[in-house]
Amino acid sequence: MKLITAVVRPERVQQVKEALFQAGISGITLSRVSGHGGEQEVVEHYRGTRVMVEFREKVEFKMAVSEPFVEVAIQAIQQGARTGEVGDGKIFVQPLERVVRIRTGEQDNAAL
Amino acid sequence: MKLITAVVRPERVQQVKEALFQAGISGITLSRVSGHGGEQEVVEHYRGTRVMVEFREKVEFKMAVSEPFVEVAIQAIQQGARTGEVGDGKIFVQPLERVVRIRTGEQDNAAL
Amino acid sequence: MKLITAVVRPERVQQVKEALFQAGISGITLSRVSGHGGEQEVVEHYRGTRVMVEFREKVEFKMAVSEPFVEVAIQAIQQGARTGEVGDGKIFVQPLERVVRIRTGEQDNAAL
Ligand SMILES: Nc1ncnc2c1ncn2[C@@H]1O[C@H](COP(=O)(O)OP(=O)(O)OP(=O)(O)O)[C@@H](O)[C@H]1O
Ligand SMILES: Nc1ncnc2c1ncn2[C@@H]1O[C@H](COP(=O)(O)OP(=O)(O)OP(=O)(O)O)[C@@H](O)[C@H]1O
Ligand SMILES: Nc1ncnc2c1ncn2[C@@H]1O[C@H](COP(=O)(O)OP(=O)(O)OP(=O)(O)O)[C@@H](O)[C@H]1O
Ligand SMILES: [Mg+2]
Ligand SMILES: [Mg+2]
Ligand SMILES: [Mg+2]
Repeated sequence: MKLITAVVRPERVQQVKEALFQAGISGITLSRVSGHGGEQEVVEHYRGTRVMVEFREKVEFKMAVSEPFVEVAIQAIQQGARTGEVGDGKIFVQPLERVVRIRTGEQDNAAL
Repeated sequence: MKLITAVVRPERVQQVKEALFQAGISGITLSRVSGHGGEQEVVEHYRGTRVMVEFREKVEFKMAVSEPFVEVAIQAIQQGARTGEVGDGKIFVQPLERVVRIRTGEQDNAAL
Repeated sequence: MKLITAVVRPERVQQVKEALFQAGISGITLSRVSGHGGEQEVVEHYRGTRVMVEFREKVEFKMAVSEPFVEVAIQAIQQGARTGEVGDGKIFVQPLERVVRIRTGEQDNAAL
């Protein structure tokens, strides 16, 4: 099992959701975040230059998936989130050792 | 050490907090999230059917614990969060390699 | 690659950002969280004592970094966040298996 986290543009949330659902991934947790992705804007001041670092509103998707769905999820997120402009976002994949469905106590793949 | 994440109903936050504190777990981070857990509501339209996917408000608990507290935490979360109805939430357990207490520089189990 | 998460005081966010940027770390995701870090305030009531557990507003930094930046990031976060008073926050380091830059499809260290 893996935990996949993706940070995307707010205006692409609907498209990412739809791409995930069509790919069969429906257990998802969303949060509002803000982020910076490496761009640097150098601004001229009357006394010199300064590096400006702006944080933009983003939305974070988190989904726990079984191994066969890792690739599927990454494809769906890219398809829903990509505009081709800088700032489209990033996907992170992390190990996940255990999952429990609270209602039933089911574990791991049975809980996904 | 493990990082335990649990997504629960907002109306159960107080009960989950109390169950965790009674179990000796008091280092906790909470965030407001929204989520979907697999239910699908098929809605009849005048032109056919459509799958509705609703996102509900949830609260995410995160806690870094030492190995002996993993089972204790899972039990406490289940006890505080379970209503028996769909949507009670999920628990995720992930590996955690290092912890630092910023004030003192203490590390790992000494920082928990 | 590692995923570093740090929970810090809101009034130290600017200093942590600056310390990270000066250390060369500029891919960062922030969220507003609330947390409790182990303090217990025992309050006297007219009918006895009660343990009060207060949750405080905190800010969570998340950053995916390559191995050589782990130590650098931890130092920068500590430098920006430490006041010396209880509640300065915690740093967590977790394994990270894969990173994808959505715009280009670049992976792992090339995507950081
Ligand atoms: N290394 C990182 N660690 C944590 N979050 C990151 C990291 N890099 C990017 N993010 C998050 O992803 C969001 C979008 O990043 P962004 O798409 O700008 O990445 P990038 O690597 O700069 O790619 P691009 O060159 O296409 O802009 C950021 O606002 C931030 O929230
Ligand atoms: N696979 C998953 N990945 C990430 N978050 C999830 C996942 N499954 C559920 N969640 C989160 O947990 C919340 C509650 O999920 P829920 O309890 O409905 O899970 P479920 O597996 O559908 O169980 P139930 O059948 O009892 O409803 C969701 O709103 C979502 O935020
Ligand atoms: N074990 C933990 N798991 C998850 N989050 C934690 C944990 N410990 C602390 N936190 C988060 O970090 C924030 C700050 O914690 P805090 O600095 O009080 O930690 P502490 O271990 O009590 O150190 P100190 O003794 O310096 O207060 C908390 O409000 C909480 O959000
Ligand atoms: Mg960028
Ligand atoms: Mg459900
Ligand atoms: Mg504390």
